[in-house]
Amino acid sequence: MSTLTANPDFEQRRRDVAAALCAVLPPHCVLSRLEDTRPYECDGLSAYRQPPMVVALPEDESQVAAVLEVCRTLNVPVVPRGAGTGLSGGAMPIAQGVVLSTAKLNRIVRVDPYARTAVVQPGVRNLAISEAAAPHGLYYAPDPSSQIACTIGGNVAENSGGVHCLKYGLTVHNVLRARVVTIEGDVIELGGEALDAPGLDLLAVFIGSEGMLGIVTEVTVKLVPKPAVARVIMASFADVVTGANAVARVIAAGIIPAGLEMMDQTSSRMVEPFVHAGYDLDAAAILLCEADGTLDEVEDEIARMAAVLRDAGASAIAVSTSEEERLRFWSGRKNAFPAAGRISPDYYCMDGTIPRKNLAQVLAGIAQMEVKYGLRCANVFHAGDGNLHPLILFDANQPDELARAEAFGADILALCVAVGGTITGEHGVGIEKIDSMCVQFKPAELAAFFAVKRAFDPLALLNPDKAIPTLHRCAEFGRMRVTNGVLPHANLPRF
Amino acid sequence: MSTLTANPDFEQRRRDVAAALCAVLPPHCVLSRLEDTRPYECDGLSAYRQPPMVVALPEDESQVAAVLEVCRTLNVPVVPRGAGTGLSGGAMPIAQGVVLSTAKLNRIVRVDPYARTAVVQPGVRNLAISEAAAPHGLYYAPDPSSQIACTIGGNVAENSGGVHCLKYGLTVHNVLRARVVTIEGDVIELGGEALDAPGLDLLAVFIGSEGMLGIVTEVTVKLVPKPAVARVIMASFADVVTGANAVARVIAAGIIPAGLEMMDQTSSRMVEPFVHAGYDLDAAAILLCEADGTLDEVEDEIARMAAVLRDAGASAIAVSTSEEERLRFWSGRKNAFPAAGRISPDYYCMDGTIPRKNLAQVLAGIAQMEVKYGLRCANVFHAGDGNLHPLILFDANQPDELARAEAFGADILALCVAVGGTITGEHGVGIEKIDSMCVQFKPAELAAFFAVKRAFDPLALLNPDKAIPTLHRCAEFGRMRVTNGVLPHANLPRF
Repeated sequence: MSTLTANPDFEQRRRDVAAALCAVLPPHCVLSRLEDTRPYECDGLSAYRQPPMVVALPEDESQVAAVLEVCRTLNVPVVPRGAGTGLSGGAMPIAQGVVLSTAKLNRIVRVDPYARTAVVQPGVRNLAISEAAAPHGLYYAPDPSSQIACTIGGNVAENSGGVHCLKYGLTVHNVLRARVVTIEGDVIELGGEALDAPGLDLLAVFIGSEGMLGIVTEVTVKLVPKPAVARVIMASFADVVTGANAVARVIAAGIIPAGLEMMDQTSSRMVEPFVHAGYDLDAAAILLCEADGTLDEVEDEIARMAAVLRDAGASAIAVSTSEEERLRFWSGRKNAFPAAGRISPDYYCMDGTIPRKNLAQVLAGIAQMEVKYGLRCANVFHAGDGNLHPLILFDANQPDELARAEAFGADILALCVAVGGTITGEHGVGIEKIDSMCVQFKPAELAAFFAVKRAFDPLALLNPDKAIPTLHRCAEFGRMRVTNGVLPHANLPRF
Repeated sequence: MSTLTANPDFEQRRRDVAAALCAVLPPHCVLSRLEDTRPYECDGLSAYRQPPMVVALPEDESQVAAVLEVCRTLNVPVVPRGAGTGLSGGAMPIAQGVVLSTAKLNRIVRVDPYARTAVVQPGVRNLAISEAAAPHGLYYAPDPSSQIACTIGGNVAENSGGVHCLKYGLTVHNVLRARVVTIEGDVIELGGEALDAPGLDLLAVFIGSEGMLGIVTEVTVKLVPKPAVARVIMASFADVVTGANAVARVIAAGIIPAGLEMMDQTSSRMVEPFVHAGYDLDAAAILLCEADGTLDEVEDEIARMAAVLRDAGASAIAVSTSEEERLRFWSGRKNAFPAAGRISPDYYCMDGTIPRKNLAQVLAGIAQMEVKYGLRCANVFHAGDGNLHPLILFDANQPDELARAEAFGADILALCVAVGGTITGEHGVGIEKIDSMCVQFKPAELAAFFAVKRAFDPLALLNPDKAIPTLHRCAEFGRMRVTNGVLPHANLPRF
């Protein structure tokens, strides 16, 4: 628990901010007692916890603007929050700050089957959009594993992907327009329904900005026709490198699968007892390759992929024969994170991206690190786009295990950058990877980020100290790096 | 000719700037005599002309940085220029400014068939990328009609599209990474080879920024596999409204054609004598619908599209039977602009975008305007994405015809905005549509654009007075609009 909660000055500040918010919001929309703010103390990066000073839950756009007005006037930092499923601590509260939750902005405004769009408020769950569009044969394509719970506002903040993003793209490719309230209190519209919009593409800069530029109050998303058929191949490989090379062969054959995912044996054995997906537990690696489209297209693509996979050394191939079976094959992949939580007291999910050609090399490197750090790592990943999600399994109650897990994770990210990749594919930077940003970007590039941040938020009140490290922080981090000789973990307070 | 050229102060300034540039560039890379700068006096929007003070043609990235350093030190505005094929005056020079041409940065750095990328300098022609990738069975998808001449740097500046962008996207969807020299002299890298990159998406904001944020020195583009087969349907319609509704029916059937283009009779009769495309000249409207993919996919999609088109009232349907015939069908559409120049002394090409459902309504409105203004208009358009290119035919030597053409064009854009569309689909704002931006955007939105512009270019030296109108300008324009009751044309100096 933060020592600040016992500070009388802090308690006075909390009362002042809560009172100012209660003047513009209904009383049930302002939470300021510790037992009420405690549920907001972390997001999916649960190793780091900090209850916020106050939580505001505005019910409409004008209330969002009013909350920001209060925060600007009182100089209180604002941390926006969707469903809190984020994995990089982007929604982690600030002790002296307000959490602005979009939970009550949860209305589906309209579904337009002709224009193939849906207009929704930010608190609408990702899956709820597809459910609302289903009667028209349409759906919203990006499907993060958390799609039952996560909201479109959070997806916009993190530029979320999913297992189908190789073919259908990330959030940025599937959002047409956003209404945004700026910290100055202006309501602006970014993007539009046309393929291109005049002016600077501020919509793209907003998507993935981790709550640092403004609060989204309405989003227009693209809907796509639900394919007539989808089938998935489950291919087994006797070793991970052969599986990784098979991924390359599928892509090199000119196929763009609807999904192309890989799991290693640690992962498949971890999830199978939990979801009974029917995985081949003897395989060192399993590849899931999906085709979608018309029946003819799918049969053709499945046949081509199966031929490539066999040729690449698959030891067994199974093709889903029903929609139920297809969903079961996917359920294991989609439930890898909860399954990790089931077999291990704690896990640390990484999110590096690498060039596809380095897949086998990086997997071999991770296997060596398992030995080095004495910890197991379950590898699940969006193989088609080179986005790795190693899950480092550890027990925070064992002395030194958290520190070893963090060092292991930092080593993985350093390896990703070393082979020409990046420190995050879709989970964002948040607090977790802010120091790794110093490795990824040059000072002039970080300066450009900050200049754009200042253009939207000159007082630096929106989600401060997340996503983009200051040059000062990088300078300190640089010294740390020189001293230790390895990429250190984020040096964060933990509560 | 600008009166400024006779001004001794101006001539001294020209000599000073040229001398400073000659100190950092080889002498043949600096043009300052009027006979040498004259070829740079306009881009494709040739009604507006202004020779620049000096033209700089840097040969490498360090020379680009040196040119910007000179301009920043001497406080000279810089207008970047690609091939000069732009249609909205984005590369129109400023009398007291330098034109920075990227023509000599024309090297294809590498083609990586495995990663499916090409790294090229900005002066490389659009089509040259596809030619370099062809031996690997790959190509660069965006195909502006000017692709023989236009360069990737200009495509990045304007976020260019093409007849295949319905399926393959605009430049922003096909560029992965850009190296940029800022006006401060920093070289920064935007984007990366991964599907997502950490940090703010400054690459997207840079693409389509019309040279206002920096000078691109290297671009990494996505390459896509050349489809095994492509075929195009040419469908005839007895009236334009039936053709427009057929477009809607194709989309509603869940088909995403590789191209979906429409031409009215004025256009087809205009281009046929020029290119002998084999168009049905009795049809009021012609629709070109392309399918690409494997042979099975293409046969299936062509059959489905043909059935929908027949059902929607097509009076005749022809399907290309060879690659040669397919290219001939497209040649008419791609040569509409030169054909207009052949039959009319002048033409004014518009670039509005509208929701697809309003296609028939807007075409009917344009037909009424032809009567109102006493001018012919040839309509060619990217029907699938609602992007219209009405070509207003006029003769600038006839009294009043230019003014009527401009008023006609402004009326078309006002109609586009009125039905929920935008004032530009892919040609950019430049100088041509800068006043229409005041109609499209609210003051807070324009302020956000300017804040981002200032973040990159605090001295406002990069392509000033293009693309984004000042609030002051909009205020003046607003008064004009109230007075006249119609959307007036851009009020620009002409030379």
